[in-house]
Parts: sequence; structure tokens; C-alpha cells
Amino acid sequence: MAIRQPAWHLPPRQIDQPVLKIFNSLTKTKTEFIPINGSHVKWYNCGPTVYDASHMGHARNYVTQDILRRIMSDYFGYDVHFVMNVTDIDDKIIVRARQNHLFSQFRNSATTLSADLLSQVSDAWGNYVRENVSKGLPVEEKPSRGEEEVRWPRIAELAQDQSRKLECLKRDEKFDMHFTAANRTFAAIETARLALSANQSSGDTALRLVDESRDILSSALDKKLKDTVTDQSVFRSLAAYWEGQFFKDMERLRVRQPDTVTRVTEYVPEIVEFVQGIIKNGYGYEFESSVYFDTGAFDASDRHDYAKLEPWSKGNRELLAEGEGVLSSTSGRRSASDFALWKASKPGEPSWPSPWGPGRPGWHIECSVMASAIFGDRMDIHSGGIDLAFPHHDNEMAQSEAYHECGAWVNYFIHTGHLHIEGLKMSKSLKNFITIDEILQRFTARQLRLAFLTQLWNAKIDFSESMMTGEVKSLEVTFNNFFTNIRAIISQARAHEDQSDGEHYYNDAERELMKSLYDSKTAFRAALCDSFNTPEALKIIRDLVSRINVYINSPGRKVNVSLVEQSATWIGDMLRMFGLGEGQASEIGWGQEDEGAGGVNREETLMPYLRVLSSFRDGVRQLAIAKSDNALKEILKLSDKLRDDDLVSLGVALDDQEDGKALVKLVSPAELIKAREEKRLKLDAQAAKKAAAAEEVRQKRLAKMEKGRVPPEEMFRPPNVPEGTYTRWDEYGLPTATGSGEELSKNQQKRARKDWDLQKKLHEEFLAWKKEQESAAGL
Amino acid sequence: MAIRQPAWHLPPRQIDQPVLKIFNSLTKTKTEFIPINGSHVKWYNCGPTVYDASHMGHARNYVTQDILRRIMSDYFGYDVHFVMNVTDIDDKIIVRARQNHLFSQFRNSATTLSADLLSQVSDAWGNYVRENVSKGLPVEEKPSRGEEEVRWPRIAELAQDQSRKLECLKRDEKFDMHFTAANRTFAAIETARLALSANQSSGDTALRLVDESRDILSSALDKKLKDTVTDQSVFRSLAAYWEGQFFKDMERLRVRQPDTVTRVTEYVPEIVEFVQGIIKNGYGYEFESSVYFDTGAFDASDRHDYAKLEPWSKGNRELLAEGEGVLSSTSGRRSASDFALWKASKPGEPSWPSPWGPGRPGWHIECSVMASAIFGDRMDIHSGGIDLAFPHHDNEMAQSEAYHECGAWVNYFIHTGHLHIEGLKMSKSLKNFITIDEILQRFTARQLRLAFLTQLWNAKIDFSESMMTGEVKSLEVTFNNFFTNIRAIISQARAHEDQSDGEHYYNDAERELMKSLYDSKTAFRAALCDSFNTPEALKIIRDLVSRINVYINSPGRKVNVSLVEQSATWIGDMLRMFGLGEGQASEIGWGQEDEGAGGVNREETLMPYLRVLSSFRDGVRQLAIAKSDNALKEILKLSDKLRDDDLVSLGVALDDQEDGKALVKLVSPAELIKAREEKRLKLDAQAAKKAAAAEEVRQKRLAKMEKGRVPPEEMFRPPNVPEGTYTRWDEYGLPTATGSGEELSKNQQKRARKDWDLQKKLHEEFLAWKKEQESAAGL
Repeated sequence: MAIRQPAWHLPPRQIDQPVLKIFNSLTKTKTEFIPINGSHVKWYNCGPTVYDASHMGHARNYVTQDILRRIMSDYFGYDVHFVMNVTDIDDKIIVRARQNHLFSQFRNSATTLSADLLSQVSDAWGNYVRENVSKGLPVEEKPSRGEEEVRWPRIAELAQDQSRKLECLKRDEKFDMHFTAANRTFAAIETARLALSANQSSGDTALRLVDESRDILSSALDKKLKDTVTDQSVFRSLAAYWEGQFFKDMERLRVRQPDTVTRVTEYVPEIVEFVQGIIKNGYGYEFESSVYFDTGAFDASDRHDYAKLEPWSKGNRELLAEGEGVLSSTSGRRSASDFALWKASKPGEPSWPSPWGPGRPGWHIECSVMASAIFGDRMDIHSGGIDLAFPHHDNEMAQSEAYHECGAWVNYFIHTGHLHIEGLKMSKSLKNFITIDEILQRFTARQLRLAFLTQLWNAKIDFSESMMTGEVKSLEVTFNNFFTNIRAIISQARAHEDQSDGEHYYNDAERELMKSLYDSKTAFRAALCDSFNTPEALKIIRDLVSRINVYINSPGRKVNVSLVEQSATWIGDMLRMFGLGEGQASEIGWGQEDEGAGGVNREETLMPYLRVLSSFRDGVRQLAIAKSDNALKEILKLSDKLRDDDLVSLGVALDDQEDGKALVKLVSPAELIKAREEKRLKLDAQAAKKAAAAEEVRQKRLAKMEKGRVPPEEMFRPPNVPEGTYTRWDEYGLPTATGSGEELSKNQQKRARKDWDLQKKLHEEFLAWKKEQESAAGL
Repeated sequence: MAIRQPAWHLPPRQIDQPVLKIFNSLTKTKTEFIPINGSHVKWYNCGPTVYDASHMGHARNYVTQDILRRIMSDYFGYDVHFVMNVTDIDDKIIVRARQNHLFSQFRNSATTLSADLLSQVSDAWGNYVRENVSKGLPVEEKPSRGEEEVRWPRIAELAQDQSRKLECLKRDEKFDMHFTAANRTFAAIETARLALSANQSSGDTALRLVDESRDILSSALDKKLKDTVTDQSVFRSLAAYWEGQFFKDMERLRVRQPDTVTRVTEYVPEIVEFVQGIIKNGYGYEFESSVYFDTGAFDASDRHDYAKLEPWSKGNRELLAEGEGVLSSTSGRRSASDFALWKASKPGEPSWPSPWGPGRPGWHIECSVMASAIFGDRMDIHSGGIDLAFPHHDNEMAQSEAYHECGAWVNYFIHTGHLHIEGLKMSKSLKNFITIDEILQRFTARQLRLAFLTQLWNAKIDFSESMMTGEVKSLEVTFNNFFTNIRAIISQARAHEDQSDGEHYYNDAERELMKSLYDSKTAFRAALCDSFNTPEALKIIRDLVSRINVYINSPGRKVNVSLVEQSATWIGDMLRMFGLGEGQASEIGWGQEDEGAGGVNREETLMPYLRVLSSFRDGVRQLAIAKSDNALKEILKLSDKLRDDDLVSLGVALDDQEDGKALVKLVSPAELIKAREEKRLKLDAQAAKKAAAAEEVRQKRLAKMEKGRVPPEEMFRPPNVPEGTYTRWDEYGLPTATGSGEELSKNQQKRARKDWDLQKKLHEEFLAWKKEQESAAGL
């Protein structure tokens, strides 16, 4: 009989282990997360509408989504497919693009300050005040038509009165912004009026007036001329620009690129097909070339519920109107809850062909269509800022469920919380509006992310100075000091490896610390399973750091280096998992925050320079191949441009030397730009000096030429000499007798002859010069 | 009544998902992996015995363990606690350390070559030959005592005879090594004898004799003087040195540092306590100050089984003896299967105090004790090379289960497979013994790891030249090219972000590729769940790379950049997860194998490139300033040189495109140089062909010129025509009468005239050519 191994028993299955639960907006509770298919997680995140700079609200939303995504993929190990849209068709984009376009057209035509220009600006100002400022005032203060200009000082006084101001703000939340614009323009108009009455009408004066009135003019021009804007690239290029800026901001915030990005402009045919499907299923109808979603029909269906996320917001007109956009009409809807699937485009609005005539997609439909295009009829997670829950996400779900005729298009809907600044909602009128660019000048991407991590992802964050300089900086310093200490301990141990006896030993203190480490890992997992509780997870790490510090600093301790190393490795790995730093797996630390050599990768570092090198070569090569007459001159220009423009912004200085070999230096771009400016100023000064010197030479020459104007034959005759100086002359005009009729002495004759010769030469020069002048003047 | 959200349903739980199964040596089948406690995985790996350089067998074992560990922690997300011991008390270490110590003592005293020194070496040699070489020979060849020296040439001859050699090898697997040592020493003795008889007795001569006899002397000195070695640091310092070397080798192989390293010398008190516990539980007994494990008593217990891993190997004396070590005695054991828990130390052996007198731990006990010290009475995974399964791991398990009185000390026992070299077991005598240092001079750590990944971790690997230069290099090149291409595509797209319209769009091809990506992720997970099937996982990645390549290279394709980017990101992440490269998460690629970009600073990285850029510009500028005739031509040459020389050695490829804008790629310099060589060979071949054609033209022209050498006046006269062809000529040398004196016919005259005209032209050409030749020759 063959010898057999003894029986082996499968360890008991664990039943009390934490499982991932996510706060689900569809239930407003934490629900267990079960993907539809294996470990594959289909995740759609609402992306930006690209018409302006991204701000702190965007930072909070996208950084938080990025944290959740990293936890799902890098910690829980799901195969996450993260899709994000870019909304590049939208009423806000249309208005902004058109206004920018019309304003710059107007500005280009404002070459001189004229009475006409002044009255155009004044009219625009008057209308603006009437529509935006006066309506906020109490009745008795409202100027009647035409009176605004006269009464503005009084209105301005009122508007700055705090109690009046609050009253106005209550009525119109943008009052402050309108008032500021009006006041600025008013001042510009006054200045321009004075200039005009003093007959100053230069282009500069005109431009100052136009620029100071930008907001007001843009709005007035749009009202008057919007129909004239027919070039669709006006809209696309604004969106493309802000899309680029958005992704640059995201990169600076260390937000990972989505796996898939979808742009609305690339999905219009699919949108049309989707809208047709909704109509076919009985949930959409056309009115005057627009198509609306029939919320009544949808809600009445047994298979569907409308507004799953916020059923209590159904019919909230304010929210609905915002969702529909400023360019929408409200007529023709069967119910106030109905919303546009397809909008007929008016002149001055971009449009795409459709069975209902030229138009464009409604806001909500894009997400339904693009998510369906990538994921089909179901997804695991849909995310976005809490602002979008109603009507956007509710409408999006209704549309998709109407099209797919399914009951659950999204299994888990997650919404990131609001962001307030120093206790107040962020708004331009409250002057607490902060762009990502601005905030990154004050704090690092890591500090911002730490701030967001210390709060629950779905809670409201109150972003404040004290939070950043208090808790966040203290956390950062704690981790930095910790990593520095551990690295020092390890490097010291490595340097004295031969004296490492006992260093691996586990005594009670080591056993206890090891237990802390693995308890921390377990608790950390439990915290992230508890709907991504990052504040708790961070606290666990911070507590472990404290315990390790206590262990290390205990008097007389022989530190178990591998134990603190494995603890620090885990802490570094987890902080990097949150996106708090760069560096490789198992590296101790979280990288350098400031570009530092640490995390640079060769490709990222080199490519910008190589691209410059390659394109310089391209240019030179093309010129050499084309063999045009001034090729060499153009090549020299390129080589100057390389030095003065392309490389300056990359922080590379080329100092051209006498021997034709430039010296290469790596310096800061700012320094280089400054040096270049100084050099330009110096060159300008030199040029001015040279020009002055040349002018002096020219004047001298002119005087000399003037002197040569007289022919030598005339030089001794009046009016070139006083009447009666001489009385007789020979055939050359040389004097032979003085005024008194006496013959000139030999000496006098000789001198006159010499002068005559000189003048002859001078006169010849004059004649040549004159001829030259005349031929240059084309005579 | 409050408005409520509609009901939400938990998605159905998935039942058919793959779960991790591991080939378990305790069952010899793939068993589902269930950790004892949550996600915490306690894993003990048998580490090295540190007395010599690590070799390919170690590389295979530790790299493979590292791969499995990374999969468990970085892919499956377990909180792995990976513990490894360092065996720094062992009979091999004792013997090696003592011999080294005694040898260097002897060597230091060998200051001159004396008759005494020579006879000591000769005696040692004689004993060595008798004990190690002669015993392998057939009886009739064996020299009797003292005859060795006289008969050595004959023995050496025999030992090199192939058939005899094989016979000897059968009897003693180290025969070859012994023979080599003996032969070397024999030669050194002969040389020394000659030197001595010539009265040369310098220290150098003495040292040469001693050094050439090192192996033989060490063994002889140890036999004679071992008792004199009482300083324990002799043993410790040898172990410390090789431990340091081992970890350096591991670092070079990119094997992660264990979380916890345990050294036997730091755990002796725990070992004593553990042995006492085993005795107390009735499974151990003392004999002459040593303690043995009672396998009979253990196996007889209802609660225990002895040799769970290899019950069929119980009592295998050869394996048991190897486990006990060269310094062990075999007497006093109750059963041949019993093994030492504690060994009484003889003089010249290190010792620690114990209740049984000064001694040292047996080999197996250390792992039981240290694993228990860190993990307590259970662990999830125990790993080691397959060589260790019996008796080491079986004994270790028996000890621990005896001490803890438990039934399952280890749940999953995993053993990495054997390594053969070119089909044969690696051994010093077969001369296919390769140290890690040696192999890393031929292949990179990445290539070795790739080789191991292409095989199952528990299968035997046959490491061969053809495998490394075939499959492995081809895989590496495939991945390298793939990453280079994708990076170039992405960087080009980033550089033209404004032209990215349509780039995100998903058509059928994109949808299909996206499906492939997620199918690959699913299949990859299934492969790793299937007992870490890395060959299958690598194949899945390689297939995906092929699919992406097909997609990219499809004619007329507008590549969806974000789709290929997300695919390449995943591929890079997975290759890094296997430990194949450095770099950050989500980075595209797997880092540079050589010198690693990690720590380079910006200046060091950039300067070589900037210098190239600047000197190209210098050259172009100088040419443009000098304005020589062929400046443009020279500029084109420079631009070719930049591409073909300067940038090639920096690893930058410029691919000139039709539109005059080169594509920039960062690749390995070696690859580029190879491509350039191929291009050059092709160009050389073309040039050779062209030269041959030119030579042909030249020869033709020469023949033609030769023909024109004769002036037309001479052409109809001898010797240019046979004597007597004509008899009369006119003043131009035209013939007027035939040889017979008859006048030429009109036709004949006409023809002659025509020939004359032709020759005239030809002759003129000849004259011009001649003049040209002469002037070229400076005449």
C-alpha cells in the first residue's frame, strides 16, 4: 500500500470580517458593496463643464473622488474602470464664448476715442444699472429711465451703506458684483469724457474705456449681436482651452487621469439616437424642435420611479431652472418637472443636425449616453458632487432607465460633500472665491489632500486658514519627522552592519509594537471598509507613529531596526496609496513635495527639452531644404529664438561666447526671464543712444550741406557777402577789386582762391547729396 | 407623511468568482487559501545558512518567494507579515570558520620556505590524497601509505581518463574537486622543492606554496588543531560577513527585505526553553549532554503524525544524516529517525549554556522556535526550497506541534521547485555552479526574474542559455518596445492637445480593445488565483500587448490615446507588481534597468542632452554666420549627425516624418546603435553598388577616349589600318585609292568621310580630356 499523507483540514471560514460598505445616496445609508461582475468595477464620475478656471469646490470634489478611486483599486484591489465626461456643450460655455468673441471684436474696432464710442459705452452702462443694480434698490431710490448717470453718485453712496447693501444682497445674490462693475465703468466714462473735451482721442484712451467696461459691454454686445456669431469654432475653442487648464490643475493636485474621458461634442450622434429611443419608449415628446422628458409618464410607470435620489425635490423650480440653463425656454412642457433632452438652437448658438431640426443636447442626457456607450445598461458606481444630485443625477438616471427600460442603472450613487470657506459658501460676490491656481500658491497639493482626508468624503468641509495651519500642517510635520528619523536609524544601522547583533531581537516592547502594527493594519482596513472612513484611517496611522516614536525614544533602547522599518514601510505605502506622495512601493517616506530630484522620472524630465531640441532641428532642416534666399538669416533668427524664448521658459541659459560655442546653464526660469528683460532694456537704451548719436551726425551733415548750397561762383557776390564788399569779379566769380575799387592784394587773391576751391568741393558734395535725396524721395 | 426614497436592492452575491488556491505540500493539491485571522497573513520563510556566496539555486528560491509575497500583498491586498530566519549556527559554518581561522594563522607564520614547511604540506597532501582521492580508485591503483607522492603522476593520468573519472564520480561526488586540489598542491610542492634545492627560501615562495595548498592545508590543520579554537567571534564574524553578502545579493535581485529577520544566535535562550518544553511533553530525551527528538513517541501519539510532508521519506538515512550535520554523532538515539534538538559542543565548537551542559541548537529547532516567537502557535504559510521538505520541515513541524501540542502548526506549506542548469543539477564538481554575482554579470535582475516568472513557482526550472537569449529576451524586448511606443504616442498627443478632437471616441475597434483589457484583467486574476500561475498571467499580458500593437498599427487609425494609456498603465502596474521594475504606481513602463532613474538629479539627467542641443545650435549658427557657399548642405549634414550620432548614444530616437516634424522617442542606446548599424550596412551596400556602377562608366569612357587618341588625319593610314589597305590620301588623310590603286567609289568616299568626321569629334574630346588629366595631375 502506498504511504499517504495524513488528512489536512481547510481552516474555518471567517464570518466576522469587515466587508466594504459605502454610503449610498440611493438609500442614504451605508450599503455593502457587491460588484456586478467579479472584481471589475464600472465607475462613472461627473466631470467639469469647461468655461472658466477651476476652483476650490472642484478641488474638493475631484481630489476626494481620486482618493476613493485609489482606495478601491490600490487598497481593495478592484479592477476599477473610471470614466469621466467633459461637458463641452453648455449654455454657460455658449454665453461666455460669444461674449468674449464679441467683446474682442468691439475692442479691435475701438481705435480712437470718439463721441460715438463714449455714447455706446454710456448706453450699455445705463441699461446695465437699470437691469442689475437699480432693481435691488428701494422704490424711492430707483432712477427713472435716463436718470442713472445723474443719480449714480447717490446710488453708489447708498450701495456702500452696509444695511442697504445687505438688503440689496438679499434680493440679488450677485448685487456686489454688479455694483462693482457699474462703478468701475462709471469712473472710466467720466475719465473718457474729460479726455474727449480736452481733444485727447488716442487709441490708448479708447482702449482704457473699453477694458474698464468689459463686463458691461460684453453683456450689452451679446444682447445686440449674438445672432451674428455663426462660427462654431468660437464655442469649441473656449471649451478646449478650459479643458486643458482643468487637466493641468488636476495633474498639479495629483489627481489620476481617468481611464476613459468622454467629450460631449464627440457623442452627438449617439445622443440623438438615445433621445429617439426615449421617445419610442413613450417617455419623451417634441415641442417646437426641442425634445422634453415626460416625468409624469415615467413616474406613472410601474417599472420606474422618478427622482430616486431626492424625491422631495421633485418640482423645485429653482433647482430645475438652473439645470435647464440660461438659454432655455420654459414654454411647451407638459409638467414643470419636465426637462430638455434636446434643445432647438437659436441663431448665435452652436447646433448639430437632428430629426427635430438643428439643436444641441440637454445637459443631463450627455451623461446617460456616454456612460451607456462605455458601460452598457448598468454600472456599479456613479459619483459626483452633492450639488448634482438633483436634478442632474435624478434626471440622468430617469433617462437611462427610460432608454434601457431597466430598474437599476446605477447600483451605488456616491456624492462628495459641500465645501465652505471660513464658514461661508464660496461665491464670487462674497470675495471668498479661490481658484486652484491661487490655492496652490499658498498650500501644496499634499496639504490640500491631507485636509480633505481628515474629513469624511461625504461630509461638508469647512476649509479654513486655521485648519490648514493647525491640524494639517501638524500632521504633515509629524509624518515628515517620522520618516526622517526612521531613515536615519536605518542608514546608521546599515553603516554599522557588523555591529548589528541583537538588532533583530523581539523582547516584550518589540512584541507589543509588532502587535500594534498588525492591529493598526486590521483597524485601518476596518475604517476603509466603513464607507472609506479616511479621518479614522489617518488617526490610526498617526497613533501608530506616536507608538513607534515612544518605542524609539525610550531611554537605553536597542532599537529593533527591521521592526521599525517594516512599520514605516507600511505607513509610507498607505500614505502613498492615498495619493499623498510619490515614490516606489516599499520606499520609506512619501517623496519630496517640491519637484525635488526624488521622484522625477527620466521621461517626464527630459521630454520638454527634447521636444525643443527636435523642433529647432525641424525648423533649421526645413529652411535648409527649402533653400530660400534668406535661409541663413532665418536660421540665425531661429537660433536666437531658441536662446531667448524656448529655452528661457525651461530654465536653460545659453550664453553665446566669442568662439561661437555657447555655455549651457540650468537656472530658474524666473531668473532667466528677469535677465532677458534687463538685457532688452539695456539694448533699448543702447539703441536710443545710438539713435541720438546718429541724429547728431545727421544734423552736422545737414549744416555742412547747407553751407555747400552756394555755388563758388556766387560766394563772393551779394547776398553771400555784404553788398559793396567787392566791386569787380573775374569769370569764376573771384573778386578782383575791393568795395573801394582797389585791386586785391596778391595775398587777398590767394586767400579768396583757396576759399573758392573749398566751396567748390563743398558745393559738389551738396549737389550729389541733393540728387541722392531727390532720388530717395522718388522725384 | 415624509417623502421616502424608493426601495433599493443589494446586487446579487457572486458565487462563480475565482478564489485563491495554493498548491499545498501538505496535500500535494491546490487548496483554497483561508487566513486564520482577517487579511493578516503570517508567513515564515526558511532563510539562508550563511557560510558562502549565494548561487543560482538561492536566486531561484528567494526571487520566487518574493514574487509570491508581492502577489499576496500588492495584488491580493493581504497584510502579509513575512518572516525569514538567518541560520548563523551550523556545522558547515563552524567547520568553514575554524578552517579559515587556522589557515590564516598558519599562513601568517609561513615567513620563509623551509624543509619543515615543505614536509608539513607534503604530509597534508599525502593524507588528503589517501582519504579523498585514492579511495575512489580501483583497488589495484590505490597507492599504499607513503606511495602517493611517487605514484601521483600515474594517479593523475588515471583521474583524467574519462571512463575512470566517471567511475570515481559515482563513488564520491566531490572527486573532481578533490582531484583538482590535490593536483594543484602537488605542482606547488614540486616547485617549492626545486626552489629549496636552489636555496630560494623567500617569503613569497613560502606563501605561494601555502596558498596553492589552501584547501588541503585547511582540512589538515582543522583535524589537528580544532580544539585550540576557543574564540566564539571566529564563528560569528564569518556568519555576519556572509549574511551581509546575502542581503546585498538579494537587493541586487530586487528581493524585498523581509518584514522580520530572525537570527539563531539571538534566540538561544528561547531555544533552550523550547527544548525543555518538548521534553516535558514527552517527545524528547537527553543522551550525553545532547537532546534528541523522539519520533517514535511522537508518531505513536493520537494527536500527532510524524513527517506530514513526506511520510515516505521516514528513515531515509542519507537525508537524515545531511540534516544532522557533519559534526554530529549518531550514537545514543532511540531510533534512526530521531534527530538532535540540542547538540553538546565539543572543544573547537561554539557553545551556549544549557541545563544539559554547553552546547548549541540542532538545525531544525531554530525555525520552530523563531517562528513561534513571532507568530505564536499557528501560522498561515510556511515556505522554503523543495530540498528542505524532508527532513527539515517535517522535523520542524513535529517539534512545534510537540511543543504547542497542536494539530496544525502550519496551514499552507509551499515549496519552490528545483533549479537545473542546462539539464543538470547544479554542483561545483560539474562546473555548472553559478554564483549570483556571476549570473548578474551576464543577465539583469529583471531578466532573471522574467525567467522565473515564465515557469510555475513549484516546478523544476531548467535554466539555460537558450531560454535566456530566446524567450526571456524576446519578452523583455516586446515590453520595452511597447512602452516606448505608447509613451511616444502620449507625449505627441500632449504636445498637440489642441488638436485632440475625436481622440477620446469609442468606435468598434476601441470597444473591442477595451473589452480585451478588462477580459485580460479578469483572466489575469483567475491565473493568479490558480496557485499563482505566473506563466499564464505573463501570457495574458503579452497577448494584450499584441492586441494593442495591432490596434495602434492599423493603417489610418486615429488612436484613442486614453484607451491605450489606461491599458499600458495597467500592464506597467502588473509588471511592477511582479517586481520586474521600478517606478511609481500608474507610471507607464517598468523603469530603466540600468542605473535606475530613481535618484538622479535634474542637472545630471539633463546636461548631456542640453550639451548636444547647444552644440548643434553652435554648429548651425557658425555656418549661417560664415555664409559659405555650401552652408545649407552642411547644415543638413549636421542635422543628420545630430540624429544618427549624438542622440543615438544618449538613447534618443528622432524619426523624421513626412511633414518635416520628427517624432521623439526615449529608448535604450544599445537598441538605437544596433538599428543605426543596420542602416549603415545597408547604406554601405548601396554605396558599393553605386561605386561599381561609377567604375563601369569610367571604364567605358576610358575605352572611348583610347579610341579617340588617333587624329582623324592618321586613321586611314597604317598602323591604324593594315598596310596596303589604301595607296593614296588627300591632305586630310582621307583615302582616295584602294590597296590595288583603284579610285574609291563615291559611296566608299562618303563612308570614309563620315568615319573621319566622327573620329575628329572623338579626337577633340580626347584632347580635351588629356589636357584636363594633365592639369589635374599638376602638369
